[in-house]
Amino acid sequence: MTARIVPPPRHVIDSLLRAALAEDLSTAGDITTDAVVPADAVTAATVVARADGVVAGLDMGLRTFALLDEAITTKVGVHDGDFVTAGTALARVSGRSRPILAAERTCLNVVGHLSGIATATREVAGLISHTRATVVDTRKTTPGLRAFEKYAVRAGGGANHRFGLFDAVLIKDNHLVGRGIGATVKAATAAVGHAVKIEVEVEDVSQLEEAISAGVDAVLLDNMTPAQLREAVEICAGRCLLEASGGITPETIVAVAETGVDLISLGWLTHSAPRLDVALDFDP
Amino acid sequence: MTARIVPPPRHVIDSLLRAALAEDLSTAGDITTDAVVPADAVTAATVVARADGVVAGLDMGLRTFALLDEAITTKVGVHDGDFVTAGTALARVSGRSRPILAAERTCLNVVGHLSGIATATREVAGLISHTRATVVDTRKTTPGLRAFEKYAVRAGGGANHRFGLFDAVLIKDNHLVGRGIGATVKAATAAVGHAVKIEVEVEDVSQLEEAISAGVDAVLLDNMTPAQLREAVEICAGRCLLEASGGITPETIVAVAETGVDLISLGWLTHSAPRLDVALDFDP
Amino acid sequence: MTARIVPPPRHVIDSLLRAALAEDLSTAGDITTDAVVPADAVTAATVVARADGVVAGLDMGLRTFALLDEAITTKVGVHDGDFVTAGTALARVSGRSRPILAAERTCLNVVGHLSGIATATREVAGLISHTRATVVDTRKTTPGLRAFEKYAVRAGGGANHRFGLFDAVLIKDNHLVGRGIGATVKAATAAVGHAVKIEVEVEDVSQLEEAISAGVDAVLLDNMTPAQLREAVEICAGRCLLEASGGITPETIVAVAETGVDLISLGWLTHSAPRLDVALDFDP
Amino acid sequence: MTARIVPPPRHVIDSLLRAALAEDLSTAGDITTDAVVPADAVTAATVVARADGVVAGLDMGLRTFALLDEAITTKVGVHDGDFVTAGTALARVSGRSRPILAAERTCLNVVGHLSGIATATREVAGLISHTRATVVDTRKTTPGLRAFEKYAVRAGGGANHRFGLFDAVLIKDNHLVGRGIGATVKAATAAVGHAVKIEVEVEDVSQLEEAISAGVDAVLLDNMTPAQLREAVEICAGRCLLEASGGITPETIVAVAETGVDLISLGWLTHSAPRLDVALDFDP
Amino acid sequence: MTARIVPPPRHVIDSLLRAALAEDLSTAGDITTDAVVPADAVTAATVVARADGVVAGLDMGLRTFALLDEAITTKVGVHDGDFVTAGTALARVSGRSRPILAAERTCLNVVGHLSGIATATREVAGLISHTRATVVDTRKTTPGLRAFEKYAVRAGGGANHRFGLFDAVLIKDNHLVGRGIGATVKAATAAVGHAVKIEVEVEDVSQLEEAISAGVDAVLLDNMTPAQLREAVEICAGRCLLEASGGITPETIVAVAETGVDLISLGWLTHSAPRLDVALDFDP
Amino acid sequence: MTARIVPPPRHVIDSLLRAALAEDLSTAGDITTDAVVPADAVTAATVVARADGVVAGLDMGLRTFALLDEAITTKVGVHDGDFVTAGTALARVSGRSRPILAAERTCLNVVGHLSGIATATREVAGLISHTRATVVDTRKTTPGLRAFEKYAVRAGGGANHRFGLFDAVLIKDNHLVGRGIGATVKAATAAVGHAVKIEVEVEDVSQLEEAISAGVDAVLLDNMTPAQLREAVEICAGRCLLEASGGITPETIVAVAETGVDLISLGWLTHSAPRLDVALDFDP
Repeated sequence: MTARIVPPPRHVIDSLLRAALAEDLSTAGDITTDAVVPADAVTAATVVARADGVVAGLDMGLRTFALLDEAITTKVGVHDGDFVTAGTALARVSGRSRPILAAERTCLNVVGHLSGIATATREVAGLISHTRATVVDTRKTTPGLRAFEKYAVRAGGGANHRFGLFDAVLIKDNHLVGRGIGATVKAATAAVGHAVKIEVEVEDVSQLEEAISAGVDAVLLDNMTPAQLREAVEICAGRCLLEASGGITPETIVAVAETGVDLISLGWLTHSAPRLDVALDFDP
Repeated sequence: MTARIVPPPRHVIDSLLRAALAEDLSTAGDITTDAVVPADAVTAATVVARADGVVAGLDMGLRTFALLDEAITTKVGVHDGDFVTAGTALARVSGRSRPILAAERTCLNVVGHLSGIATATREVAGLISHTRATVVDTRKTTPGLRAFEKYAVRAGGGANHRFGLFDAVLIKDNHLVGRGIGATVKAATAAVGHAVKIEVEVEDVSQLEEAISAGVDAVLLDNMTPAQLREAVEICAGRCLLEASGGITPETIVAVAETGVDLISLGWLTHSAPRLDVALDFDP
Repeated sequence: MTARIVPPPRHVIDSLLRAALAEDLSTAGDITTDAVVPADAVTAATVVARADGVVAGLDMGLRTFALLDEAITTKVGVHDGDFVTAGTALARVSGRSRPILAAERTCLNVVGHLSGIATATREVAGLISHTRATVVDTRKTTPGLRAFEKYAVRAGGGANHRFGLFDAVLIKDNHLVGRGIGATVKAATAAVGHAVKIEVEVEDVSQLEEAISAGVDAVLLDNMTPAQLREAVEICAGRCLLEASGGITPETIVAVAETGVDLISLGWLTHSAPRLDVALDFDP
Repeated sequence: MTARIVPPPRHVIDSLLRAALAEDLSTAGDITTDAVVPADAVTAATVVARADGVVAGLDMGLRTFALLDEAITTKVGVHDGDFVTAGTALARVSGRSRPILAAERTCLNVVGHLSGIATATREVAGLISHTRATVVDTRKTTPGLRAFEKYAVRAGGGANHRFGLFDAVLIKDNHLVGRGIGATVKAATAAVGHAVKIEVEVEDVSQLEEAISAGVDAVLLDNMTPAQLREAVEICAGRCLLEASGGITPETIVAVAETGVDLISLGWLTHSAPRLDVALDFDP
Repeated sequence: MTARIVPPPRHVIDSLLRAALAEDLSTAGDITTDAVVPADAVTAATVVARADGVVAGLDMGLRTFALLDEAITTKVGVHDGDFVTAGTALARVSGRSRPILAAERTCLNVVGHLSGIATATREVAGLISHTRATVVDTRKTTPGLRAFEKYAVRAGGGANHRFGLFDAVLIKDNHLVGRGIGATVKAATAAVGHAVKIEVEVEDVSQLEEAISAGVDAVLLDNMTPAQLREAVEICAGRCLLEASGGITPETIVAVAETGVDLISLGWLTHSAPRLDVALDFDP
Repeated sequence: MTARIVPPPRHVIDSLLRAALAEDLSTAGDITTDAVVPADAVTAATVVARADGVVAGLDMGLRTFALLDEAITTKVGVHDGDFVTAGTALARVSGRSRPILAAERTCLNVVGHLSGIATATREVAGLISHTRATVVDTRKTTPGLRAFEKYAVRAGGGANHRFGLFDAVLIKDNHLVGRGIGATVKAATAAVGHAVKIEVEVEDVSQLEEAISAGVDAVLLDNMTPAQLREAVEICAGRCLLEASGGITPETIVAVAETGVDLISLGWLTHSAPRLDVALDFDP
């Protein structure tokens, strides 16, 4: 199912890369390189993984070079979503030395950050592949990188929860302004139109039944024990999707998944996954 | 020395917050809240730390609320740079419910991400406080967040390396295009003017001597053993600053710091520090 | 149900208004007013409807004045979604003459355009209020005004279809690349995650059954006769939502609605509804 | 005289198209196409007029495809300003399926909106081609689309009034702050420099004479009867241009034009002209 | 006639000031001030002219302070267009020290640059005040500062030529693609509509007559001797405006003006006028 | 040493050029050219220096043409930093007439402005080439053009002072908030990290000694007489760099340079250097 590993639209990518280049170059540029590397020097280099992991953001990282100099050529050896071992050559870069040196760090920061998220996703997804549960992300993302980090989760084999506040309804406790869950779900359904899914967070079994009766598409079960989750799965009996959430770690995820929930959302995939070590090795 | 914990310029902060709000709200807004929470509902809530750590980005996180509704009032209980224990109330927020709910996640993403970096910085800085060494950051930052992550390092008690390619010279192996280190340093010195510091990466003792003779301000010692670092400290004898770099972890940093180097740079402070858990608890 | 008449986020509104002011003022400003109206002149004026209709965009139109001069005061007499008759005073504006004159046309262009859409929506919604069908919009909107025009549809009593290509799946004939509808729906379901609704366009009864079996949330019935629609309603029997589409006009909409479909989408609401005539009458 | 059918500058076009693509794609992109159409699928399609009308915005609409994928090829069969009948093939598009499907609606929204305005312009211009009068537009345009809609008017055979408040003086009643028309015109003339034309709105014959004596370039006659207009034409006797304005429709325009006025301005050309129906037919 | 000394629209001013602040502060801010001046320090200072000249850009320069800190108070002592002598206090600034120090240079760069242009304009305008000629600017402006420099010319007592290529026609030799001046003027007149003035550059007396016959509003006489200009004035006899242009200096302008031309355009007003020395003196 | 004549990053250049084109073209474009020059007309022209001087900004000026039409070809005959005499052909431009005419003025404004600064720099640098002193620029630049004007100084043979408030510390009198120079320098050193140079302005010999003892990299000597400067040079004895500043002109610079100072900063290079006259001569 590689069809879903499609990156954000080009203009979204370019916007991030331009911001990253701007913060690294400001208006003076790469003063080291400009000072000591001749304008006509050329070079070639290899993007290399220094640790095992899942690649994500390779094409968009490489695009950094093109944004500085469209004459730089890049050639990928692997694709986003591929698992690679330490030492694997991910891509080749060749062209004028100045823009390659100036773009190097920005490229690596993109690839390392997104590959780190993809790698973490794959690891937890692997732990629960024997269950029906799918790993999904949250809105706990790094400011400005939402679409990219959600892409990295897809590259790692996870699925996306809603992209933001705008594309799906998720009713939490603070949205119940004096109304019950059923009434709130019905109000939301009437208000947002037919093209929007509705999920609601419940705290106990009676709320779960009320939510299902109101016609929700999914129910969020926050900070429940495996026993509670199992009970919810039984009650629900497939009438809507069930999502487990709240402090779930690689240590606890198997027990959660084996309860039969459909979705397990993990904030740390996007806010705390460590970077995958990648480097640019220049030809000698 | 609180003077140095000064955040980026206002327009830089607002630009990040607006981008973060835009990716969460898109053009449709918070459809859940708009559908079920009345326009005139008001609420109050507390930003709470759920784990021990150093706070960073609190004021800028809270500014998210003002960007949606300038009538929302916020009041901080602690300041950036403060160490807090789990359960500490960091700030109070009160005003119209709709914009508070819409800005909540963006605010927390900012505070959690930056406080995570500050917390990690403080931890490693504490390990080496008996030495002359200072913890410094690198350019291995999250794309678009350079200035913010460097601010978080300052809030955690670390110091900043250069902000980008534009404000200091750092000559690495790939910049030595057929010239020795001494000649390269002199070329850079002549080219960049008097207002720019010059650092150079060396691989051995002979390069170190050559760099110092050429008048560098600092020397980067990459991936050296404590024994090699100690030798470099002796040879240098205070003629320039020495920076140790390369895969240094909390496990190895004490040995590195005790060699007598001036600076220890750590990429993972900014690319892999886990988020500090912070939450917004609404008044019942 | 006024909860749903919530305008786009503030920054989206301001972005449109600033673009509109920029195209009217360029860099030289309102040269007529600057030339002949003294800087200290003040005035007051009334926004008046010159025809019967539904108001939409009034607050955002009035915000134009604040963007030029925050000291201008505005006071609304009606609210978005209200039906007004010709001659109704919609709002009062008072303050310095120069910015009021400079912002007048931009304000009126916003209010007139959006109120025109709201008025058209209300008219067709009224025609079918005895049926179960809801009027919904399409993606046939004016470039750059999507969120605003969809807001106007809501103000007129219609509902929104998806906001764009990003927030819901709508599978059309061109998406069936050698696969049947059922297989395509399943592929989409697997790829987009649980937070996204899936609708599919069908051409005949057999495709309808296949789509429903694959678990779609809604089916689009394009350019079908009332008889065909009625047959589809019977076959569907409430297993998913049914949307009628394609050249439906005020003349034909009643017959369509009475077939029992759930949704009727009308492109002309947003691309061809005539402006509602509104004017700014200055106090003598 | 095709020379005048020149579109806005490239950066103005690209800015609109990018905004339109952004509102349709957000940061997640075309999730339907990404989910079910393979990355390497290719297609070809024809832009077709579904009704008789004047084409406008064809090249700029087609440019949408290039903004998503510069490898897409487009070939026009007609030119802006051409009158076409229903069924006419306007252009061919071929290339990768994904970007073609993603850009389709944005392209059609541009071409349909602008061609609708051009078509309406041509219709009214045709009604008065036996007179000296020229159809001109107004500032009653859709927010953000001023330059495009004025271009469409030119493509339809009309002429442009001023582009905004910045490029010509138009003195209305509200600008006469205690001064007569003559004094106001002279003040404006002195203030704005020699490169700016000056027009003034008058309410009766005595004001007309005063305006002409003050040296205006044109006079706006608002909401006058044909008899009043005819009298004004006689009095003016060619000493300046005369513009008729105010609620003029296709039903009344001939009588207005036959009075001998030079210009007839019509707001509805740009704010209420219905879209020309255009579609993208994919090759089977 | 102070009515004409109206600055560019607020958003145009803010855009320039924000760009200027961004290039001075980048993302790290004023590191000197942040390091050594306490956050709660306050100060007061006076903007002082260090040389005789005409003030321009004072309010917009002072706005720089508000953009960094809206709590800073400023109070002007003179107005744009005023002539001041060396030592004159132009304005007072008081508030927090940090933002005042950070904005100081940007403020002074704006005021000094624009006042320099206003001062030069006033000097040459004074030389020819006994003639009918008016000093006008050109499009030879500093990139990005067109509207500001043209404002400064107005503040100095000059008048504006067209703002750009978009608001008036100026036909030069390179526009005569095989047609005579008369035919070219007529083509332009037909193409651009009634709201645009038309000026044409001529090289000799026969072209002048041809241009006038074609109905131009103004004629540009480039690099002509006073004798040639005088002949042109006689031939023209008031039928259109005459503009002298081309290398005219303070030394030669009187002779040019005394020929009777209406307008004298001077590129060096905006591209080469030296800055007026202004400074910010802090209270002791 | 041509290595240092490296222009600002491409995106910084394009941003300035796009702003300059936007202010010249607005949304209507070059109405003269569009009206009278056929779309298919082609032309060729030469960029010529009309006075002796140093070229700067030639490539970036020529890039203006590519931004309007990438098919225009340009070919340079000289390089930035070259001294040319009046009449020298700097570059050739050929392609479609319309975009060449539309971009002409913007291109020339860039080249003329920057070449003027380079020319002035070279003139003063030549006066003191027999001394150890280097000419450096200041932050007294035209708003929005900082990086470009500093580039022009480099092209003229000068050196750059800091780019802004963000990349080096410069402690002036107003930064001494109740502390001595030594204490202030030490506070700054501790706060800003090792990658930033520190300069301090002193008023007399005792402050100079205090600054050197505190370890500054450079000392600014403002408005001192040659005798005072000479004394400072003797006291300093090479322990840090010395910069002379304050009203230094071509008439006084030799005496200043011969005192032995290292740096002489001149604000007028960037705020008052007159434009170099350059023109675009079209082939007949």
